Amino acid sequence: MTAPRYTDLVQSLPATVPFVGPEEQERARGAPFRARLGANESLFGPSPAAVKAMQAEVLEIWKYGDPGSHDLRHELARHMRARPENILVGEGIDGLLGNLVRLLIGPGDAVVTSDGAYPTFNYHVTGFGGALYKVPYRDDHEDPAALFRKAKEVNARLVYLANPDNPMGTWHSGETIMAALDDLPESCLLVLDEAYVEFAPQGTAAPIEADDPRIIRMRTFSKAYGMAGARIGYAIGAPDLIRSFDKIRNHFGMNRVAQAGALAALQDAAWLTHVQEQVAGARDRITGLAADNGLSALPSATNFVAVDCGGDGAFASRVLDELVARGVFVRKPFVPPQDRCIRISCGRVQDLDVLAETLPEALAAARS
Amino acid sequence: MTAPRYTDLVQSLPATVPFVGPEEQERARGAPFRARLGANESLFGPSPAAVKAMQAEVLEIWKYGDPGSHDLRHELARHMRARPENILVGEGIDGLLGNLVRLLIGPGDAVVTSDGAYPTFNYHVTGFGGALYKVPYRDDHEDPAALFRKAKEVNARLVYLANPDNPMGTWHSGETIMAALDDLPESCLLVLDEAYVEFAPQGTAAPIEADDPRIIRMRTFSKAYGMAGARIGYAIGAPDLIRSFDKIRNHFGMNRVAQAGALAALQDAAWLTHVQEQVAGARDRITGLAADNGLSALPSATNFVAVDCGGDGAFASRVLDELVARGVFVRKPFVPPQDRCIRISCGRVQDLDVLAETLPEALAAARS
Repeated sequence: MTAPRYTDLVQSLPATVPFVGPEEQERARGAPFRARLGANESLFGPSPAAVKAMQAEVLEIWKYGDPGSHDLRHELARHMRARPENILVGEGIDGLLGNLVRLLIGPGDAVVTSDGAYPTFNYHVTGFGGALYKVPYRDDHEDPAALFRKAKEVNARLVYLANPDNPMGTWHSGETIMAALDDLPESCLLVLDEAYVEFAPQGTAAPIEADDPRIIRMRTFSKAYGMAGARIGYAIGAPDLIRSFDKIRNHFGMNRVAQAGALAALQDAAWLTHVQEQVAGARDRITGLAADNGLSALPSATNFVAVDCGGDGAFASRVLDELVARGVFVRKPFVPPQDRCIRISCGRVQDLDVLAETLPEALAAARS
Repeated sequence: MTAPRYTDLVQSLPATVPFVGPEEQERARGAPFRARLGANESLFGPSPAAVKAMQAEVLEIWKYGDPGSHDLRHELARHMRARPENILVGEGIDGLLGNLVRLLIGPGDAVVTSDGAYPTFNYHVTGFGGALYKVPYRDDHEDPAALFRKAKEVNARLVYLANPDNPMGTWHSGETIMAALDDLPESCLLVLDEAYVEFAPQGTAAPIEADDPRIIRMRTFSKAYGMAGARIGYAIGAPDLIRSFDKIRNHFGMNRVAQAGALAALQDAAWLTHVQEQVAGARDRITGLAADNGLSALPSATNFVAVDCGGDGAFASRVLDELVARGVFVRKPFVPPQDRCIRISCGRVQDLDVLAETLPEALAAARS
C-alpha cells in the first residue's frame, strides 16, 4: 500500500499557503479580534439591495447557478462599455488569476511581477511551474516601465500590474499606464488588477479598449462592493481570450447567491458612492492617527492605508504583533523596503476607535 | 499586436463544455421550463435551518470565508467518523475533482473511468493532459473489477468510480466495493464519487477507513442537502493527500454563506430524512409513469431515475427533445447502450404532474 503518485511539479511545490486567515489567528489567540482591519474587506458592507437580493436568492439555492452568469455578464458589459463577449465572471480575482495562469504558463515560462506585489498571483505562477521575475517597487509604486522592460528581457508570457497597488495603496494615472503600454512586448499579456480601482481618483482606470488583445483587466465585488465572502469577480478582455477560459474553467463553479448579489450591487450606484465617501473619511482618519503617533501614512487610492512605522521591517513586524495581541487584525508588506509599513484597512468609526486606543500602546511595546 | 501565447496543452484542448445549463436552454427556447428535472438538483430544497443560517450569514458577506472551513470540517469529521485532517471542504465535487486531477495527472498520465460516466471528471483529466482509458458499463452498472484491471494494465495513477452511479442510478453494495479493492493496483488512487450516497440503501457506502491512502471519497451538499447553487462539497482521505491540496487550491475560494448553510444542513438530520422519503416516493412515481407509458425504469439509488425509452439512442434523444419542447428539462446518458435512456430527476408532485402530462405526448411525437 503506497502513496499516490503526484506530478513532479506538485512534488516540487512548497506546502506554504499565501495567507493565514483571521479566523485561524482568532482560534490561536483564543479570542475574537476587536477590529478586523487586515484583509481590506469593506466593513461598510454590501448594498442593502444586494443583501435583500442575496437573502431572496437563498430560497433558490437548490438550483445550480447559471454557468454563463448571463444576466450579470450583460450588466457588467453595460457597466464597462464592453460587449458580453468581453466579460468573464469567476470565483473572485484569485480564481480568475489561477485560470489565467493555467492558460498561459507551463513549466519554465517567464512571468514578471513586482517584488512584494500580490502573493496569490505568485502562488498560482509557482503552482503551474512558471519562472517568476520580480522588479523592485520605485518610491513605493509599482513601476510599469521597468516591468515591461523586464518582460521583454526575459521573453515573458504574462506580466502582472495592480493599479492601484496592494499592499502600498499607491497608484498611477490611467494616462501613465497607457503610455507605458507602448513598451509592453508583443505577445506578452498584461494582467491589470483593478481590485481597488473604485476607490481611486477619476482617471486612475486606464482607458483600455475591451477588445485590446494585449491586456486582461480584473475587478471584484470583494472590495468596494463589500462582498468578499461571496467570491465573485470578473475579467474584461478580448473575446478570444475570454472564450479560452471555457476550455478549463469550472463551468458550474459560481454560487448563485453571489451572482444575484453582484447584480444588485452593481445596480446600486448610490451605495457605492456612500462607501467611497466612508472610505475616504477613514483614510483621512488613519492618516491622522498615524501622524498623532509620529508616523507617516502613504497616500492611498484604495480602502487601506500603508503606515510607515519609521523603522525597518523587523520593527514594523513588532508593531503588527503588538496590534494583533491587542485584538487588531492587520497585515503588512513582506518585502523591503515596503515592509517598514503596516497595512490598515479602512474601518468604521468604531473600528478605528479601537485602532486609536491600541496603536500608541503597540508602538510603545514595539519600542521597548 | 499579437494574441497571447497559450500553453501547448491549452491550444490542444477543445472549446466544448461539459454541460449546457438550463438557463441557456430557456433563453434559446424563449420560455422558462415548467419542470426542472435535468440536473439532479433537489427540488425539495435545503433544510429550513440551512436557509435561515444562510440568510443570516448574508449580513457577514463582507468578510472572506474561513480558508480552513474550520467549523464545518470539524463537524464533517464527526459525521464521517474521521479526524479533521481527513477532510477537505471545496467548491463542490467539480472543484475538488479538478484539484485532485491537477495533483496527480500531467500530460500522458493514465486515468481510468467508465465509458459514459461523469463527463466533468473527463473534462478535468483532458484539461491537464491525462490519457483517459474507458471501461464499458456492465448491465448498466459501473464495473469495479474491470476498472481496476484496466488501471493495472495501463499503469493508471487515478481511477474514477461513482457509487451510486450517475447517469444510470445503479449501485453496488459497500461489500462489493471493498472486495474489489483488493485488485486496485499499488499507487493508483481511487476517487470514489459518493455524490448520491445519501439516497442509497443502507450498506451502499463502502466502510473505508478515512486514513486509507488508496482512496479519496467525495461527497456534496448539492444533492440530498439541496444546495447545488452554493457550490460546496468535501473530500475524505488520508491526511497526506488532503494536505497536498493546500499546495494548489484556491485557499480563499469558499463562499461563507455556503459554509454556514452546509454546517446547518449537516446538523438537521430530520430534514435529510424528509428529503430521502420524498425522493423515494418520487422514484416510485417516475417508475410508475414509465410503466404507464410502456417504458421500463432502472432501479435507482439516487435522486433520479434512468428510464429506458425502449429504442436506440437516437429515439431517446427524440423523446428528450420533445420533453424539452414541452417545458420539461431532462438530460440523458451520452454513450451506448446507456443512451437508450433518459434521466429524470426526482421532482415534487407538481413537477411530476407536468411529466405525467407531457411524457405520453413526447413519446407519441418521437415515434411519429
